[in-house]
Amino acid sequence: MNADDARHPFDRAIALEPQDHERWLGHTSPAYANMVGPYGGISAAQALQVVMQHPQRLGEPTALTVNFCAALADGPFTAIARPLRTNRSTQHWLVELQQQGETQLSATVFTALRRDTWGSDELRKPAVPAPAQCPQAPSRGVAWLERYEMRFVEGSLPTEWDGEDHGSSLTRLWLRDAPPRPLDHASLTALSDAFFPRIWRRRAMRVPIGTVTMTVYFHADAAQLHRVGSGYLLGQAQAQGYRRGYFDQSAQLWSEAGDLLATSHQLVYYKE
Amino acid sequence: MNADDARHPFDRAIALEPQDHERWLGHTSPAYANMVGPYGGISAAQALQVVMQHPQRLGEPTALTVNFCAALADGPFTAIARPLRTNRSTQHWLVELQQQGETQLSATVFTALRRDTWGSDELRKPAVPAPAQCPQAPSRGVAWLERYEMRFVEGSLPTEWDGEDHGSSLTRLWLRDAPPRPLDHASLTALSDAFFPRIWRRRAMRVPIGTVTMTVYFHADAAQLHRVGSGYLLGQAQAQGYRRGYFDQSAQLWSEAGDLLATSHQLVYYKE
Repeated sequence: MNADDARHPFDRAIALEPQDHERWLGHTSPAYANMVGPYGGISAAQALQVVMQHPQRLGEPTALTVNFCAALADGPFTAIARPLRTNRSTQHWLVELQQQGETQLSATVFTALRRDTWGSDELRKPAVPAPAQCPQAPSRGVAWLERYEMRFVEGSLPTEWDGEDHGSSLTRLWLRDAPPRPLDHASLTALSDAFFPRIWRRRAMRVPIGTVTMTVYFHADAAQLHRVGSGYLLGQAQAQGYRRGYFDQSAQLWSEAGDLLATSHQLVYYKE
Repeated sequence: MNADDARHPFDRAIALEPQDHERWLGHTSPAYANMVGPYGGISAAQALQVVMQHPQRLGEPTALTVNFCAALADGPFTAIARPLRTNRSTQHWLVELQQQGETQLSATVFTALRRDTWGSDELRKPAVPAPAQCPQAPSRGVAWLERYEMRFVEGSLPTEWDGEDHGSSLTRLWLRDAPPRPLDHASLTALSDAFFPRIWRRRAMRVPIGTVTMTVYFHADAAQLHRVGSGYLLGQAQAQGYRRGYFDQSAQLWSEAGDLLATSHQLVYYKE
Protein backbone atom coordinates (compact mmCIF):
# COMPACT_ATOMS: atom_id res chain seq x y z
CA MET A 1 0.00 0.00 0.00
CA ASN A 2 1.59 3.28 -1.04
CA ALA A 3 0.92 6.77 0.28
CA ASP A 4 -1.64 7.42 -2.44
CA ASP A 5 -3.86 4.62 -1.23
CA ALA A 6 -4.32 6.31 2.13
CA ARG A 7 -6.27 9.10 0.48
CA HIS A 8 -10.04 8.97 0.18
CA PRO A 9 -11.10 7.64 -3.26
CA PHE A 10 -12.63 11.06 -3.99
CA ASP A 11 -9.34 12.85 -3.36
CA ARG A 12 -7.53 10.38 -5.56
CA ALA A 13 -10.14 10.87 -8.28
CA ILE A 14 -9.86 14.67 -8.42
CA ALA A 15 -6.05 14.80 -8.15
CA LEU A 16 -4.34 16.79 -10.92
CA GLU A 17 -0.71 17.02 -11.96
CA PRO A 18 0.57 20.32 -13.38
CA GLN A 19 1.76 20.41 -17.02
CA ASP A 20 2.20 24.16 -17.58
CA HIS A 21 0.64 27.38 -16.26
CA GLU A 22 -2.81 26.54 -17.65
CA ARG A 23 -2.76 22.76 -18.20
CA TRP A 24 -3.07 19.84 -15.78
CA LEU A 25 -3.12 16.08 -16.20
CA GLY A 26 -6.00 14.14 -14.67
CA HIS A 27 -7.31 10.59 -14.91
CA THR A 28 -10.76 9.08 -14.92
CA SER A 29 -11.30 7.09 -11.74
CA PRO A 30 -12.26 3.39 -11.71
CA ALA A 31 -13.68 3.99 -8.22
CA TYR A 32 -16.27 6.34 -9.77
CA ALA A 33 -16.94 4.43 -12.97
CA ASN A 34 -20.49 4.38 -14.30
CA MET A 35 -21.92 1.68 -16.54
CA VAL A 36 -20.12 3.30 -19.50
CA GLY A 37 -17.41 5.89 -18.78
CA PRO A 38 -17.10 7.89 -15.57
CA TYR A 39 -19.91 9.11 -13.28
CA GLY A 40 -20.79 12.64 -14.45
CA GLY A 41 -20.61 14.02 -10.93
CA ILE A 42 -16.94 13.10 -10.61
CA SER A 43 -16.14 14.71 -13.99
CA ALA A 44 -17.90 17.87 -12.80
CA ALA A 45 -15.88 17.79 -9.56
CA GLN A 46 -12.66 17.36 -11.56
CA ALA A 47 -13.59 20.42 -13.64
CA LEU A 48 -14.18 22.48 -10.50
CA GLN A 49 -10.96 21.18 -8.96
CA VAL A 50 -8.93 22.66 -11.81
CA VAL A 51 -10.09 26.09 -10.64
CA MET A 52 -9.86 25.25 -6.91
CA GLN A 53 -6.16 24.44 -7.15
CA HIS A 54 -5.33 27.19 -9.67
CA PRO A 55 -2.82 29.71 -8.27
CA GLN A 56 -4.77 32.62 -9.78
CA ARG A 57 -8.11 31.75 -8.18
CA LEU A 58 -9.86 34.64 -6.42
CA GLY A 59 -12.51 33.76 -3.83
CA GLU A 60 -14.80 30.80 -3.40
CA PRO A 61 -16.74 28.83 -6.01
CA THR A 62 -20.22 30.30 -6.16
CA ALA A 63 -21.63 29.00 -9.45
CA LEU A 64 -20.59 26.24 -11.82
CA THR A 65 -21.97 25.08 -15.16
CA VAL A 66 -20.60 21.88 -16.66
CA ASN A 67 -21.33 20.79 -20.23
CA PHE A 68 -20.85 17.11 -21.01
CA CYS A 69 -19.75 17.47 -24.64
CA ALA A 70 -18.82 13.83 -25.25
CA ALA A 71 -18.23 10.71 -23.18
CA LEU A 72 -14.83 10.74 -21.45
CA ALA A 73 -12.89 7.60 -22.32
CA ASP A 74 -11.34 5.73 -19.38
CA GLY A 75 -7.80 7.04 -18.95
CA PRO A 76 -5.91 10.34 -18.81
CA PHE A 77 -7.25 13.75 -19.77
CA THR A 78 -5.81 17.24 -20.06
CA ALA A 79 -7.52 19.93 -17.99
CA ILE A 80 -7.25 23.51 -19.20
CA ALA A 81 -8.36 26.48 -17.11
CA ARG A 82 -8.14 30.18 -17.74
CA PRO A 83 -9.74 33.19 -16.10
CA LEU A 84 -11.91 34.90 -18.74
CA ARG A 85 -12.32 37.89 -16.47
CA THR A 86 -10.96 38.94 -13.10
CA ASN A 87 -12.76 41.73 -11.27
CA ARG A 88 -12.04 43.26 -7.89
CA SER A 89 -13.85 40.58 -5.91
CA THR A 90 -15.16 38.13 -8.53
CA GLN A 91 -13.74 35.95 -11.28
CA HIS A 92 -15.13 34.07 -14.30
CA TRP A 93 -13.37 30.91 -15.48
CA LEU A 94 -13.46 28.68 -18.51
CA VAL A 95 -12.43 25.04 -18.06
CA GLU A 96 -12.05 22.29 -20.64
CA LEU A 97 -11.26 18.61 -20.20
CA GLN A 98 -9.69 17.29 -23.37
CA GLN A 99 -8.69 13.87 -24.70
CA GLN A 100 -6.74 13.50 -27.94
CA GLY A 101 -7.08 17.27 -28.40
CA GLU A 102 -10.89 17.10 -28.42
CA THR A 103 -13.08 18.85 -25.85
CA GLN A 104 -14.99 16.21 -23.87
CA LEU A 105 -16.26 18.58 -21.18
CA SER A 106 -16.49 22.36 -20.85
CA ALA A 107 -17.30 24.34 -17.74
CA THR A 108 -17.70 27.91 -16.61
CA VAL A 109 -16.99 28.66 -12.97
CA PHE A 110 -17.79 31.84 -11.06
CA THR A 111 -15.76 32.54 -7.93
CA ALA A 112 -16.29 35.38 -5.48
CA LEU A 113 -15.06 36.87 -2.24
CA ARG A 114 -18.21 36.63 -0.15
CA ARG A 115 -19.28 38.97 2.60
CA ASP A 116 -21.78 38.78 5.42
CA THR A 117 -25.25 40.00 4.47
CA TRP A 118 -28.84 39.36 5.45
CA GLY A 119 -29.68 35.85 4.38
CA SER A 120 -32.52 33.35 4.34
CA ASP A 121 -33.40 29.91 3.05
CA GLU A 122 -36.69 30.57 1.31
CA LEU A 123 -37.04 26.93 0.30
CA ARG A 124 -37.07 25.12 3.63
CA LYS A 125 -35.83 21.61 4.18
CA PRO A 126 -38.84 19.32 4.11
CA ALA A 127 -39.76 17.48 7.33
CA VAL A 128 -38.49 13.93 6.85
CA PRO A 129 -37.43 11.02 9.10
CA ALA A 130 -33.83 11.05 10.33
CA PRO A 131 -31.18 9.15 8.32
CA ALA A 132 -31.05 6.26 10.79
CA GLN A 133 -34.78 5.70 10.25
CA CYS A 134 -34.36 5.35 6.47
CA PRO A 135 -33.00 2.05 5.17
CA GLN A 136 -29.74 2.13 3.26
CA ALA A 137 -30.26 1.51 -0.47
CA PRO A 138 -28.80 -1.82 -1.63
CA SER A 139 -25.80 -1.83 -3.94
CA ARG A 140 -26.63 -1.86 -7.64
CA GLY A 141 -23.34 -3.22 -8.94
CA VAL A 142 -22.05 0.09 -10.36
CA ALA A 143 -18.75 1.40 -8.98
CA TRP A 144 -19.74 5.03 -8.34
CA LEU A 145 -22.84 4.01 -6.39
CA GLU A 146 -20.50 2.28 -3.92
CA ARG A 147 -18.99 5.71 -3.25
CA TYR A 148 -22.23 7.05 -1.78
CA GLU A 149 -24.34 6.03 1.14
CA MET A 150 -27.95 6.61 0.07
CA ARG A 151 -30.97 6.36 2.34
CA PHE A 152 -34.16 7.02 0.44
CA VAL A 153 -36.97 8.91 2.13
CA GLU A 154 -39.32 9.06 -0.83
CA GLY A 155 -39.22 8.22 -4.54
CA SER A 156 -36.56 5.52 -4.58
CA LEU A 157 -35.56 3.62 -7.71
CA PRO A 158 -38.59 1.66 -8.93
CA THR A 159 -38.56 -2.00 -7.93
CA GLU A 160 -40.86 -2.93 -10.81
CA TRP A 161 -40.09 -1.56 -14.27
CA ASP A 162 -43.68 -1.82 -15.39
CA GLY A 163 -43.90 1.43 -17.36
CA GLU A 164 -46.58 2.85 -15.09
CA ASP A 165 -46.69 6.68 -15.12
CA HIS A 166 -46.17 7.76 -11.49
CA GLY A 167 -47.17 11.36 -12.29
CA SER A 168 -44.32 12.71 -10.16
CA SER A 169 -40.56 12.23 -10.31
CA LEU A 170 -39.89 13.59 -6.82
CA THR A 171 -37.10 11.89 -4.89
CA ARG A 172 -35.87 12.71 -1.40
CA LEU A 173 -32.93 10.92 0.13
CA TRP A 174 -30.18 11.23 2.70
CA LEU A 175 -26.77 10.88 1.17
CA ARG A 176 -23.07 11.26 1.91
CA ASP A 177 -19.72 10.01 0.68
CA ALA A 178 -18.83 6.39 1.39
CA PRO A 179 -16.58 6.17 3.29
CA PRO A 180 -17.57 9.50 4.94
CA ARG A 181 -15.40 12.47 3.95
CA PRO A 182 -15.54 16.12 5.13
CA LEU A 183 -17.71 18.08 2.70
CA ASP A 184 -16.14 20.66 0.37
CA HIS A 185 -17.23 22.35 -2.87
CA ALA A 186 -15.79 19.58 -5.04
CA SER A 187 -17.65 16.80 -3.24
CA LEU A 188 -20.82 18.92 -3.08
CA THR A 189 -20.58 19.26 -6.88
CA ALA A 190 -20.37 15.50 -7.28
CA LEU A 191 -23.25 14.97 -4.85
CA SER A 192 -25.42 17.32 -6.96
CA ASP A 193 -25.41 14.71 -9.72
CA ALA A 194 -26.12 11.68 -7.51
CA PHE A 195 -29.85 11.45 -8.26
CA PHE A 196 -30.88 8.61 -10.56
CA PRO A 197 -32.60 9.84 -13.76
CA ARG A 198 -35.97 11.48 -13.04
CA ILE A 199 -37.56 9.84 -16.07
CA TRP A 200 -36.85 6.40 -14.60
CA ARG A 201 -38.86 7.36 -11.52
CA ARG A 202 -41.63 9.11 -13.40
CA ARG A 203 -42.27 6.29 -15.88
CA ALA A 204 -40.82 3.19 -14.21
CA MET A 205 -39.07 2.60 -17.50
CA ARG A 206 -35.29 2.37 -17.82
CA VAL A 207 -34.69 4.36 -21.02
CA PRO A 208 -31.14 5.38 -22.08
CA ILE A 209 -30.21 8.81 -20.67
CA GLY A 210 -27.25 11.18 -20.45
CA THR A 211 -26.81 14.54 -18.72
CA VAL A 212 -25.79 17.22 -21.22
CA THR A 213 -25.37 20.19 -18.88
CA MET A 214 -25.50 20.76 -15.12
CA THR A 215 -25.42 23.97 -13.10
CA VAL A 216 -24.68 24.19 -9.37
CA TYR A 217 -25.19 27.30 -7.24
CA PHE A 218 -23.21 27.12 -4.02
CA HIS A 219 -25.12 28.86 -1.28
CA ALA A 220 -22.61 27.65 1.32
CA ASP A 221 -19.05 28.88 1.60
CA ALA A 222 -16.10 26.73 2.69
CA ALA A 223 -16.53 27.60 6.37
CA GLN A 224 -20.14 26.45 6.33
CA LEU A 225 -19.27 23.22 4.49
CA HIS A 226 -16.53 22.60 7.06
CA ARG A 227 -19.15 22.79 9.81
CA VAL A 228 -21.27 20.17 8.02
CA GLY A 229 -18.24 17.86 8.04
CA SER A 230 -19.04 14.31 7.03
CA GLY A 231 -22.69 14.49 8.02
CA TYR A 232 -25.63 13.47 5.88
CA LEU A 233 -27.19 15.81 3.32
CA LEU A 234 -30.85 15.75 2.43
CA GLY A 235 -31.17 15.74 -1.35
CA GLN A 236 -34.34 16.48 -3.26
CA ALA A 237 -34.79 16.28 -7.04
CA GLN A 238 -37.66 16.63 -9.47
CA ALA A 239 -38.18 17.17 -13.19
CA GLN A 240 -40.25 20.08 -14.48
CA GLY A 241 -40.65 19.08 -18.13
CA TYR A 242 -39.91 16.26 -20.59
CA ARG A 243 -40.11 17.07 -24.28
CA ARG A 244 -38.63 15.75 -27.53
CA GLY A 245 -35.66 13.94 -26.06
CA TYR A 246 -34.72 16.19 -23.13
CA PHE A 247 -35.93 16.63 -19.57
CA ASP A 248 -34.74 18.90 -16.80
CA GLN A 249 -34.00 18.24 -13.13
CA SER A 250 -34.10 20.75 -10.28
CA ALA A 251 -32.33 19.65 -7.12
CA GLN A 252 -31.60 20.96 -3.65
CA LEU A 253 -29.14 19.81 -1.01
CA TRP A 254 -29.60 20.71 2.65
CA SER A 255 -27.44 19.88 5.66
CA GLU A 256 -29.00 17.71 8.34
CA ALA A 257 -29.27 20.90 10.43
CA GLY A 258 -31.48 22.35 7.68
CA ASP A 259 -29.19 24.80 5.87
CA LEU A 260 -29.57 24.98 2.09
CA LEU A 261 -26.05 24.25 0.83
CA ALA A 262 -26.56 24.07 -2.93
CA THR A 263 -29.25 24.22 -5.59
CA SER A 264 -28.64 22.51 -8.88
CA HIS A 265 -30.21 22.06 -12.29
CA GLN A 266 -29.49 19.80 -15.18
CA LEU A 267 -30.76 18.97 -18.64
CA VAL A 268 -30.78 15.29 -19.56
CA TYR A 269 -31.07 13.54 -22.91
CA TYR A 270 -33.41 10.57 -23.07
CA LYS A 271 -34.16 8.11 -25.81
CA GLU A 272 -36.96 5.68 -26.49
CA MET B 1 -37.55 56.46 -41.59
CA ASN B 2 -35.12 53.97 -43.11
CA ALA B 3 -35.61 50.25 -43.68
CA ASP B 4 -33.99 49.43 -40.35
CA ASP B 5 -36.64 51.30 -38.43
CA ALA B 6 -39.35 49.01 -39.76
CA ARG B 7 -37.88 46.12 -37.81
CA HIS B 8 -39.06 45.31 -34.31
CA PRO B 9 -36.76 46.88 -31.67
CA PHE B 10 -35.81 43.36 -30.57
CA ASP B 11 -34.65 42.39 -34.06
CA ARG B 12 -32.64 45.59 -34.31
CA ALA B 13 -31.10 44.91 -30.89
CA ILE B 14 -29.88 41.39 -31.73
CA ALA B 15 -28.64 42.20 -35.25
CA LEU B 16 -25.01 41.22 -35.91
CA GLU B 17 -22.64 42.12 -38.71
CA PRO B 18 -20.04 39.53 -39.81
CA GLN B 19 -16.35 40.38 -39.32
CA ASP B 20 -14.70 37.03 -40.09
CA HIS B 21 -15.63 33.35 -39.80
CA GLU B 22 -15.93 33.48 -36.00
CA ARG B 23 -16.39 37.18 -35.18
CA TRP B 24 -19.42 39.47 -35.45
CA LEU B 25 -20.04 43.09 -34.60
CA GLY B 26 -23.00 43.93 -32.38
CA HIS B 27 -24.20 47.01 -30.52
CA THR B 28 -25.90 47.55 -27.20
CA SER B 29 -29.44 48.79 -27.76
CA PRO B 30 -30.80 52.05 -26.30
CA ALA B 31 -34.29 50.52 -26.64
CA TYR B 32 -33.28 47.86 -24.08
CA ALA B 33 -31.20 50.05 -21.78
CA ASN B 34 -31.37 49.39 -18.05
CA MET B 35 -30.60 51.97 -15.37
CA VAL B 36 -26.89 51.38 -15.96
CA GLY B 37 -25.84 49.52 -19.14
CA PRO B 38 -28.04 47.15 -21.10
CA TYR B 39 -30.82 44.87 -19.80
CA GLY B 40 -29.21 41.49 -19.08
CA GLY B 41 -31.91 39.64 -21.00
CA ILE B 42 -31.02 41.41 -24.24
CA SER B 43 -27.32 40.65 -23.78
CA ALA B 44 -28.21 36.98 -23.24
CA ALA B 45 -30.34 37.06 -26.42
CA GLN B 46 -27.45 38.62 -28.34
CA ALA B 47 -25.17 35.83 -27.13
CA LEU B 48 -27.63 33.20 -28.30
CA GLN B 49 -28.12 35.00 -31.60
CA VAL B 50 -24.44 34.59 -32.44
CA VAL B 51 -25.03 30.84 -32.50
CA MET B 52 -28.47 31.08 -34.14
CA GLN B 53 -27.06 32.84 -37.19
CA HIS B 54 -23.81 30.87 -37.30
CA PRO B 55 -23.44 28.89 -40.55
CA GLN B 56 -22.07 25.86 -38.66
CA ARG B 57 -25.00 25.56 -36.23
CA LEU B 58 -26.46 22.06 -35.94
CA GLY B 59 -29.99 21.78 -34.56
CA GLU B 60 -32.01 23.92 -32.19
CA PRO B 61 -30.96 25.73 -29.03
CA THR B 62 -31.76 23.44 -26.11
CA ALA B 63 -29.70 24.87 -23.23
CA LEU B 64 -27.93 28.18 -22.67
CA THR B 65 -25.79 29.47 -19.82
CA VAL B 66 -24.77 33.12 -19.85
CA ASN B 67 -22.16 34.56 -17.49
CA PHE B 68 -22.24 38.31 -16.97
CA CYS B 69 -18.52 38.87 -16.44
CA ALA B 70 -18.55 42.67 -16.41
CA ALA B 71 -20.99 45.46 -17.31
CA LEU B 72 -21.22 46.02 -21.08
CA ALA B 73 -20.52 49.65 -21.90
CA ASP B 74 -23.01 51.35 -24.23
CA GLY B 75 -21.73 50.94 -27.78
CA PRO B 76 -20.29 48.26 -30.05
CA PHE B 77 -19.05 44.84 -29.02
CA THR B 78 -17.33 41.94 -30.77
CA ALA B 79 -19.12 38.60 -30.57
CA ILE B 80 -17.03 35.45 -30.88
CA ALA B 81 -18.52 32.00 -31.29
CA ARG B 82 -16.91 28.64 -31.84
CA PRO B 83 -18.20 25.09 -31.63
CA LEU B 84 -16.24 23.34 -28.86
CA ARG B 85 -17.64 20.01 -29.96
CA THR B 86 -19.82 18.80 -32.80
CA ASN B 87 -21.42 15.37 -32.45
CA ARG B 88 -23.75 13.54 -34.80
CA SER B 89 -26.89 15.29 -33.60
CA THR B 90 -25.70 17.72 -30.90
CA GLN B 91 -23.28 20.62 -30.62
CA HIS B 92 -21.61 22.54 -27.78
CA TRP B 93 -20.72 26.21 -28.30
CA LEU B 94 -18.63 28.81 -26.54
CA VAL B 95 -19.60 32.47 -27.04
CA GLU B 96 -17.88 35.60 -25.80
CA LEU B 97 -18.94 39.25 -26.09
CA GLN B 98 -15.87 41.44 -25.89
CA GLN B 99 -15.19 45.17 -25.65
CA GLN B 100 -11.66 46.56 -25.95
CA GLY B 101 -10.40 42.98 -26.07
CA GLU B 102 -11.89 42.16 -22.63
CA THR B 103 -14.54 39.49 -22.08
CA GLN B 104 -17.71 41.16 -20.78
CA LEU B 105 -19.97 38.13 -21.22
CA SER B 106 -19.36 34.44 -21.79
CA ALA B 107 -21.91 31.81 -22.73
CA THR B 108 -22.14 28.13 -23.46
CA VAL B 109 -24.90 26.99 -25.78
CA PHE B 110 -26.08 23.44 -26.42
CA THR B 111 -27.91 22.78 -29.68
CA ALA B 112 -29.55 19.53 -30.75
CA LEU B 113 -31.57 17.89 -33.48
CA ARG B 114 -34.69 16.96 -31.56
CA ARG B 115 -36.93 13.97 -32.16
CA ASP B 116 -40.44 13.04 -31.13
CA THR B 117 -40.59 11.14 -27.85
CA TRP B 118 -42.97 10.64 -24.97
CA GLY B 119 -43.29 13.98 -23.17
CA SER B 120 -44.97 15.60 -20.21
CA ASP B 121 -45.04 18.87 -18.31
CA GLU B 122 -44.58 17.68 -14.75
CA LEU B 123 -44.77 21.22 -13.40
CA ARG B 124 -48.22 22.37 -14.47
CA LYS B 125 -49.14 25.94 -15.25
CA PRO B 126 -50.81 27.35 -12.15
CA ALA B 127 -54.48 28.33 -12.39
CA VAL B 128 -54.51 32.11 -12.74
CA PRO B 129 -56.86 34.78 -14.15
CA ALA B 130 -56.57 35.49 -17.90
CA PRO B 131 -54.27 38.31 -19.06
CA ALA B 132 -57.16 40.69 -19.75
CA GLN B 133 -58.25 40.36 -16.13
CA CYS B 134 -54.82 41.41 -14.82
CA PRO B 135 -54.01 45.13 -14.91
CA GLN B 136 -51.06 46.22 -17.00
CA ALA B 137 -48.11 47.30 -14.85
CA PRO B 138 -47.38 51.03 -15.08
CA SER B 139 -44.19 52.18 -16.75
CA ARG B 140 -41.23 52.62 -14.42
CA GLY B 141 -39.18 54.97 -16.55
CA VAL B 142 -36.57 52.42 -17.64
CA ALA B 143 -36.21 51.79 -21.39
CA TRP B 144 -36.22 47.97 -21.38
CA LEU B 145 -39.39 47.83 -19.29
CA GLU B 146 -41.14 49.67 -22.15
CA ARG B 147 -40.27 46.70 -24.35
CA TYR B 148 -42.44 44.33 -22.31
CA GLU B 149 -46.11 44.25 -21.52
CA MET B 150 -46.38 42.94 -17.97
CA ARG B 151 -49.61 42.01 -16.23
CA PHE B 152 -48.97 40.87 -12.68
CA VAL B 153 -51.05 38.07 -11.24
CA GLU B 154 -49.27 37.81 -7.91
CA GLY B 155 -46.17 39.27 -6.26
CA SER B 156 -45.82 42.51 -8.17
CA LEU B 157 -43.15 45.10 -7.39
CA PRO B 158 -43.72 46.38 -3.84
CA THR B 159 -45.54 49.71 -3.68
CA GLU B 160 -44.12 50.47 -0.24
CA TRP B 161 -40.40 49.95 0.33
CA ASP B 162 -40.83 49.45 4.04
CA GLY B 163 -38.32 46.64 4.52
CA GLU B 164 -40.99 44.20 5.68
CA ASP B 165 -40.01 40.55 5.16
CA HIS B 166 -42.75 39.04 2.97
CA GLY B 167 -41.50 35.48 3.61
CA SER B 168 -41.94 34.60 -0.07
CA SER B 169 -40.51 36.06 -3.25
CA LEU B 170 -43.00 34.35 -5.57
CA THR B 171 -44.08 36.37 -8.60
CA ARG B 172 -46.50 35.33 -11.32
CA LEU B 173 -47.22 37.54 -14.30
CA TRP B 174 -48.37 37.53 -17.90
CA LEU B 175 -45.81 39.01 -20.20
CA ARG B 176 -44.95 39.47 -23.86
CA ASP B 177 -42.92 41.73 -26.10
CA ALA B 178 -44.15 45.30 -26.62
CA PRO B 179 -45.04 45.77 -29.37
CA PRO B 180 -46.02 42.09 -29.76
CA ARG B 181 -43.54 39.96 -31.74
CA PRO B 182 -43.67 36.27 -32.74
CA LEU B 183 -41.83 34.25 -30.10
CA ASP B 184 -38.50 32.59 -30.91
CA HIS B 185 -35.62 31.23 -28.85
CA ALA B 186 -33.85 34.61 -28.73
CA SER B 187 -36.88 36.47 -27.38
CA LEU B 188 -37.67 33.61 -24.99
CA THR B 189 -34.13 33.98 -23.64
CA ALA B 190 -34.67 37.69 -23.04
CA LEU B 191 -38.07 37.02 -21.41
CA SER B 192 -36.40 34.58 -18.99
CA ASP B 193 -34.63 37.52 -17.37
CA ALA B 194 -37.65 39.85 -17.18
CA PHE B 195 -38.45 39.21 -13.50
CA PHE B 196 -37.54 42.04 -11.14
CA PRO B 197 -35.04 40.97 -8.44
CA ARG B 198 -36.53 38.40 -6.04
CA ILE B 199 -34.88 40.05 -3.05
CA TRP B 200 -36.82 43.28 -3.74
CA ARG B 201 -40.04 41.31 -3.44
CA ARG B 202 -38.97 39.25 -0.47
CA ARG B 203 -37.75 42.18 1.64
CA ALA B 204 -39.49 45.22 0.15
CA MET B 205 -36.05 46.79 0.11
CA ARG B 206 -34.39 48.05 -3.07
CA VAL B 207 -30.81 46.85 -2.56
CA PRO B 208 -28.27 46.98 -5.43
CA ILE B 209 -28.25 43.73 -7.43
CA GLY B 210 -26.72 42.21 -10.55
CA THR B 211 -27.22 38.84 -12.23
CA VAL B 212 -23.91 36.96 -12.50
CA THR B 213 -25.06 33.87 -14.38
CA MET B 214 -28.29 32.65 -15.97
CA THR B 215 -29.23 29.28 -17.46
CA VAL B 216 -32.19 28.65 -19.76
CA TYR B 217 -33.46 25.19 -20.74
CA PHE B 218 -35.61 25.34 -23.85
CA HIS B 219 -38.34 22.72 -23.63
CA ALA B 220 -40.00 24.10 -26.77
CA ASP B 221 -38.57 23.81 -30.24
CA ALA B 222 -38.98 26.43 -32.98
CA ALA B 223 -42.19 24.88 -34.32
CA GLN B 224 -43.82 25.05 -30.90
CA LEU B 225 -42.69 28.65 -30.35
CA HIS B 226 -44.08 29.51 -33.76
CA ARG B 227 -47.47 28.21 -32.67
CA VAL B 228 -47.38 30.47 -29.57
CA GLY B 229 -46.85 33.42 -31.90
CA SER B 230 -47.16 36.77 -30.15
CA GLY B 231 -49.39 35.48 -27.37
CA TYR B 232 -48.87 36.04 -23.66
CA LEU B 233 -46.59 33.84 -21.57
CA LEU B 234 -47.20 33.09 -17.93
CA GLY B 235 -43.99 33.66 -16.03
CA GLN B 236 -43.28 32.45 -12.51
CA ALA B 237 -40.17 33.16 -10.46
CA GLN B 238 -39.00 32.49 -6.93
CA ALA B 239 -35.77 32.46 -4.97
CA GLN B 240 -34.65 29.37 -3.06
CA GLY B 241 -31.84 30.82 -0.97
CA TYR B 242 -30.09 34.10 -0.11
CA ARG B 243 -26.67 33.88 1.52
CA ARG B 244 -23.57 36.05 1.84
CA GLY B 245 -24.24 38.34 -1.13
CA TYR B 246 -25.88 35.95 -3.60
CA PHE B 247 -29.38 34.61 -4.13
CA ASP B 248 -30.79 32.30 -6.76
CA GLN B 249 -33.94 32.51 -8.88
CA SER B 250 -35.87 29.63 -10.43
CA ALA B 251 -38.28 30.59 -13.18
CA GLN B 252 -40.75 28.95 -15.53
CA LEU B 253 -42.45 30.26 -18.66
CA TRP B 254 -45.66 28.66 -19.97
CA SER B 255 -47.72 29.51 -23.05
CA GLU B 256 -51.24 30.72 -22.44
CA ALA B 257 -52.37 27.27 -23.64
CA GLY B 258 -50.40 25.77 -20.74
CA ASP B 259 -47.29 24.35 -22.39
CA LEU B 260 -44.02 24.69 -20.47
CA LEU B 261 -41.76 26.53 -22.92
CA ALA B 262 -38.66 27.19 -20.83
CA THR B 263 -37.28 26.79 -17.33
CA SER B 264 -34.57 29.14 -16.17
CA HIS B 265 -32.26 29.72 -13.23
CA GLN B 266 -30.00 32.53 -12.25
CA LEU B 267 -27.63 33.58 -9.50
CA VAL B 268 -27.78 37.22 -8.47
CA TYR B 269 -25.38 39.36 -6.49
CA TYR B 270 -26.88 41.62 -3.84
CA LYS B 271 -25.37 44.23 -1.60
CA GLU B 272 -26.46 45.91 1.60
